[in-house]
Amino acid sequence: MKRRYILAGAAALATGAGVVGVLGRRGTRTVKRNVSDSTATPAINKNRRKLRMVTSWPKDFPGLGEMPKRFSRAVYDITEGRLDIKVYAAGELVGALECFDATSTGAADMYHSAEYYWQGRSKAFSFFTAVPMGMTAVEIMGWVEFGGGQALWDELSGNFNIKPLQAGNTGHQTGGWFKREMNSLEDFKGLKIRMPGLGGEVIRRLGGAAVRLSGGEIYQALQSGAIDATEWVGPWNDLALGFYREAPLYYAPGFHEPGAALSIGINLDIWNSLSTSDRALIKFAAKAANDTSLAEYTFENARALATLKNIYGVEPGFFSDEIMVTIGRVAEEVVREFGQADTQTQKVYDSYIKARNACREWTEMGDGRYIRARKAALGG
Amino acid sequence: MKRRYILAGAAALATGAGVVGVLGRRGTRTVKRNVSDSTATPAINKNRRKLRMVTSWPKDFPGLGEMPKRFSRAVYDITEGRLDIKVYAAGELVGALECFDATSTGAADMYHSAEYYWQGRSKAFSFFTAVPMGMTAVEIMGWVEFGGGQALWDELSGNFNIKPLQAGNTGHQTGGWFKREMNSLEDFKGLKIRMPGLGGEVIRRLGGAAVRLSGGEIYQALQSGAIDATEWVGPWNDLALGFYREAPLYYAPGFHEPGAALSIGINLDIWNSLSTSDRALIKFAAKAANDTSLAEYTFENARALATLKNIYGVEPGFFSDEIMVTIGRVAEEVVREFGQADTQTQKVYDSYIKARNACREWTEMGDGRYIRARKAALGG
Repeated sequence: MKRRYILAGAAALATGAGVVGVLGRRGTRTVKRNVSDSTATPAINKNRRKLRMVTSWPKDFPGLGEMPKRFSRAVYDITEGRLDIKVYAAGELVGALECFDATSTGAADMYHSAEYYWQGRSKAFSFFTAVPMGMTAVEIMGWVEFGGGQALWDELSGNFNIKPLQAGNTGHQTGGWFKREMNSLEDFKGLKIRMPGLGGEVIRRLGGAAVRLSGGEIYQALQSGAIDATEWVGPWNDLALGFYREAPLYYAPGFHEPGAALSIGINLDIWNSLSTSDRALIKFAAKAANDTSLAEYTFENARALATLKNIYGVEPGFFSDEIMVTIGRVAEEVVREFGQADTQTQKVYDSYIKARNACREWTEMGDGRYIRARKAALGG
Repeated sequence: MKRRYILAGAAALATGAGVVGVLGRRGTRTVKRNVSDSTATPAINKNRRKLRMVTSWPKDFPGLGEMPKRFSRAVYDITEGRLDIKVYAAGELVGALECFDATSTGAADMYHSAEYYWQGRSKAFSFFTAVPMGMTAVEIMGWVEFGGGQALWDELSGNFNIKPLQAGNTGHQTGGWFKREMNSLEDFKGLKIRMPGLGGEVIRRLGGAAVRLSGGEIYQALQSGAIDATEWVGPWNDLALGFYREAPLYYAPGFHEPGAALSIGINLDIWNSLSTSDRALIKFAAKAANDTSLAEYTFENARALATLKNIYGVEPGFFSDEIMVTIGRVAEEVVREFGQADTQTQKVYDSYIKARNACREWTEMGDGRYIRARKAALGG
């Protein structure tokens, strides 16, 4: 999953851009909100406050689209509607990739999205979502909360007038759907695969052709033969798009997004205008959204994998050690080069890699060894 | 980690029991609370409510002890002190293992503990913490939230006038500290190891002698030779107790608690007396506590493992496939027998095993394969 899949189409983007154009910058927006507040609802609670959250997710998108809605419902329910955060799908208020700028300027109050979409602003943002051969879901949670990640992130986003919080995780993202067997590194040469971002750069260094396509464009590209393979998210989201029909070989593991973190960014003026208690509420509601999304992706991916196997006859294949070791070496190069973009990015890269290297030994010794032993003992 | 380690000593238990005796049942407690409310603080907020949370954790116990404190602080901060949950360490109000009964009767308003401590009330409770060869941390989160676990748990705890919520996880618990090498199944014969609960039963079926000891008793038992080995939690909590000095061989993976879930239980009369918004607050604060604890254990275990290796020269060893396959087979027997205790336990067992079997395939294909590939590629 990366940058362009969320471009649900030119129409949505154009609409999005249009709305931003109309709303303009802070002054205009503030006036509009006051008007809307006083007309929309009788003042049940004088302190009632409406806030607008833009997102990068298509309307009703499973998993990713649920995270901001759950967050908003939690805040609403806890405050009995005093804090009322309206969630906008991509294109409803601003385009999928305009969430950050809209929040930065105050055209929106906050966003739910993935930080690597903002790598045009700073490459450092990518480390707060996922990088190839990087941290798993629980590891990145550990780094951000306990390994110094949050302070670096606050500094980075603060440059853009934004307060960032972790607010979701997809868990491990799978290797992808292929039309032909991937038995050796030779098979990557000339391979046309939909894989954006740093993962795509790894593929290019292996001799393949990585392309960017939005989610809605992938199936047709597989059907027409424009691409030979695609990655997307995991069994749950992949099953919904039916890739198994055109590219039935499902390979694991993925290397490109080992646990993609989602985030909430809040306009800093809005953040600072909130009471201490409301800031606490938003922090804890974001943590709760993170928790629930990881539970949901774990369970729904498991359920979808069973459906893919038992109903659609998909039999997962696995990249060889030789393939994964080479991918790992190349990924380290790609990420290291990327992490040297500028001083701030280098600082984030250094902290990220240090935490990953500390975590990966424990993760391998604990979860890794256990998962392997359980498979050996119970089969499946 | 299991039942008896939290018995910090007879003194604490006796004190605990004494306090319960004094407070008595609901009526007495309610009167006491009203008195305390009106005298302790001027009525800044008329709706201010004090609640008492008993826990099974010694005072200032890292990790486990932080979970209820973080939860309580979140609720306090969000409500500006309107909901004020005082957290009691084990023995301060009631003994470590009396939390459940105290909450059930109303002698306390809620607890933070581990459900398997209540297996004397119903064996079904064990499945809401951890069982040998069972679910990992994120898997049990998935089952409880999305796989029907919460409904079964509500029914089970409801029988005891308690509303249960997930509110913490230690992540994977390690295999343990040994004085001698564990190369084959033969080495388990006659092995004296501190391992309580169902894990201990597995050890007994392998010909070993599993004993129960509280945390404070373990070190001396290792030193005197009363035991040859011990499990505890993971590198973070284990390092603090210094086991590496007496039993320097640290084995992985653990099989007995692959991701021990902690929980909050709330007296049902208290729960029902709360407003809808306060119930929402407590639910989301519990989820946030769960999220943070998993992040913390991941990061702190990683950090402690590095200390054990680099400062104290501990070199982790790994149980062979032969050992783990046999342990897995025996564990399945033990858990199956345990799960047939009664109709309700059987229902929980069936749901748990179904969810685990669905999850383990995805977990192995995703996280499992990725963690292994990352090790192969990056070493360590």
